[in-house]
This record gives sequence, C-alpha cells and structure tokens, in this order.
Amino acid sequence: MNISTEQLFDHARTHNVWLDRPVPDDLLHRLYEMMKFGPTSANCSPARIVFVRSPEAKARLVPCMSEGNRAKTAAAPVTAIIGMDLKFYEKLPQLFPHDPGARSWFEGNDATIQSTAFRNSSLQGGYFIIAARALGLDCGPMSGFDAPRVDAEFWRGTSVKTNFVCSLGYGDATQLFPRSPRLSFDEACRLA
Amino acid sequence: MNISTEQLFDHARTHNVWLDRPVPDDLLHRLYEMMKFGPTSANCSPARIVFVRSPEAKARLVPCMSEGNRAKTAAAPVTAIIGMDLKFYEKLPQLFPHDPGARSWFEGNDATIQSTAFRNSSLQGGYFIIAARALGLDCGPMSGFDAPRVDAEFWRGTSVKTNFVCSLGYGDATQLFPRSPRLSFDEACRLA
Repeated sequence: MNISTEQLFDHARTHNVWLDRPVPDDLLHRLYEMMKFGPTSANCSPARIVFVRSPEAKARLVPCMSEGNRAKTAAAPVTAIIGMDLKFYEKLPQLFPHDPGARSWFEGNDATIQSTAFRNSSLQGGYFIIAARALGLDCGPMSGFDAPRVDAEFWRGTSVKTNFVCSLGYGDATQLFPRSPRLSFDEACRLA
Repeated sequence: MNISTEQLFDHARTHNVWLDRPVPDDLLHRLYEMMKFGPTSANCSPARIVFVRSPEAKARLVPCMSEGNRAKTAAAPVTAIIGMDLKFYEKLPQLFPHDPGARSWFEGNDATIQSTAFRNSSLQGGYFIIAARALGLDCGPMSGFDAPRVDAEFWRGTSVKTNFVCSLGYGDATQLFPRSPRLSFDEACRLA
C-alpha cells in the first residue's frame, strides 16, 4: 500500500478530539496484521492488545483513566490497551524455531523478563502507532491511568500487564494545538 | 516522500550480513529529522543516539557486544546506540511549553522517571527502525551487550543509559533466514 512519510511522521499529530466517524473492526485486524511484522528481540512479540470499542467495555475503562484523560477516552471510537505478556517466553518455541533453547534464556530470570517485555512491547507500541497512521487512522496515546486497575479490569487471570493506552479514530484537526518543538539533531544525537 | 507499507513492515527483515555500501552521514541526519516527530508522553523525547561509524568508535563498541553480536556489529557501516536520558524532564520547559509545571511531574520521582524514559525511548526506537526503513536502510536491532560497559564507553559523564543497539546499512538479502512466524490476531488481540 502506498503512503507517504509525511503521513506517518512530519504531518501526523496526536489527537484528543474525535470526529463522529466509526472505526470498523476490519481496520483493527489490518492494523495488527501490519504491526506484527515489526522486529522484537528473538521475535518475542510480547505485546497483547485489547481494542476497547463497545459502550460496556468503554464504561469499564474510562474510570481507570486519569481525570484529564476520561472525556477524550469516552469520546474516541476505539481505545486500545497495549499490554505486555510477562510469560512471553512460553511462546518462543513457536516464535523462535531457530533455537529450541530460547525459552531458557528467560525462564526464572525476572529482571530480564521485565525489561524484555517492557522494551519490546513499547517498540511494538511504536509500530502500532505508525501502522495505524499508515491506515489513515489518528492516534491519541496516553500513559495517565491507574495501571493496576486497568490490569484488574482487562487482564485478570492472565500474565499480561498494561504498558500504555492509545485511542484510535479520526481526529478533528481544527482542535489541534500548535506542534510542540523537538530536540535538534545536535541536542539528541552524536556522530562517533 | 512516497513509500509503501510493505517496505516498512511486510517485506522488511532484520539483517545480520551487510553489503559493502556506506551510509552517508546526511542519511543519519534525515533519519533523526523524521523519527523525532513520533509521539512521546508530554513530548518528553528521552531518546539520545550515538551513531557509531568511525573505526575508532567501532573498536570501542564491538568488545561491549555479546560474543554472537561482535562480528556483525564490526561489519555494519553504522551501529546506533539508542540511549535514554534519565534527566529528560530538564528539557520539558523547552519541549512542553503548554504546561510550565511539567518538569515537576517527574523531578525526584525515580520510578516514574525510569518507566517514562524506558517506555518512551523504546517507542522512539520503534520510530527509528521504521524511519530508517523508509529511507531505504536495513536495520539490525540487538539487545545482547554489556550495558554498563556501553554506558561507560559512550555516555560517561551524562545522565544517559543505553536502551538498545541497532546496526544500519544495506543488508545482504541472500543471507536471510526464512521469516519466523508471528502470533495470529486471536493470539495477541481481543475486541472488547
């Protein structure tokens, strides 16, 4: 599918005000089928996603959000909860067939499990945002919420913990603030 | 710039064998100027990058890598060290002018600083990989290295810690393994 880098980066903005235009479930499937190809270490793919779009599920999510995030979460056609499975390594025999011993790199090593799940599910969160934009969706990522409460509402009985939350829909561009500045190359980067 | 989603996701592969084709510094600048637009919480933009491409700097980096990552790191035209600045909040008056108090959300709150820096620099790592691919580069991300040693070699005297490392160049597609499987939508996602 042809797109432009401007659509993904230069002209894309975080949205907080949503047009009354639904996001079909088919598009959520296409979003996952694109983002799943982004690389993770040992292909461990720890991200798990709940796409919250029914009124019942939204009513469970909204009170978990920080006060300033509630109204916009309620108004978004879809809000995705991006979690990380802390037992991701149990799927390595399926995901990393090159090395049947890959599971043992993690099992019992809680610090490595935690950092691998967090780093890689966040990388996948980056792929998620870019893939959504490639499909013409706008994103509203948020990290202001009561994580243990979201875990209890949406991941109970699993080994998944919430990483961040991201609304999806069609943003109202007339409601955007001016874009905030970014660091210059020299502030953020160095050639060595 | 026109690109395709296949170039970014479906057809893109992690590379370990590099063609003898240099990556001009100009392309590294363009890569940062694209990835910098990806969203981070409160625009905190904690990622810091060292582009290691001189023989002297490569000679310092290679011994920090896990044994299995050394030869391919030495052979890559560029290996980027993606770090996270644990004092990212000091730049919030510049980066988040909407709220002059944003710095105080973090200052002194080490757990929030750590998770915000790690999550958002990893998101930026995802943008980095996708932006590199958009520019025609191949990526070889790696997390197998001695992090305290990389920190000491490349971030000494700063508040930056290494998150992950990613080689950049033009991969030899004839040397690729078959692509590993991904989780299906139903294994990774749920509609609620």
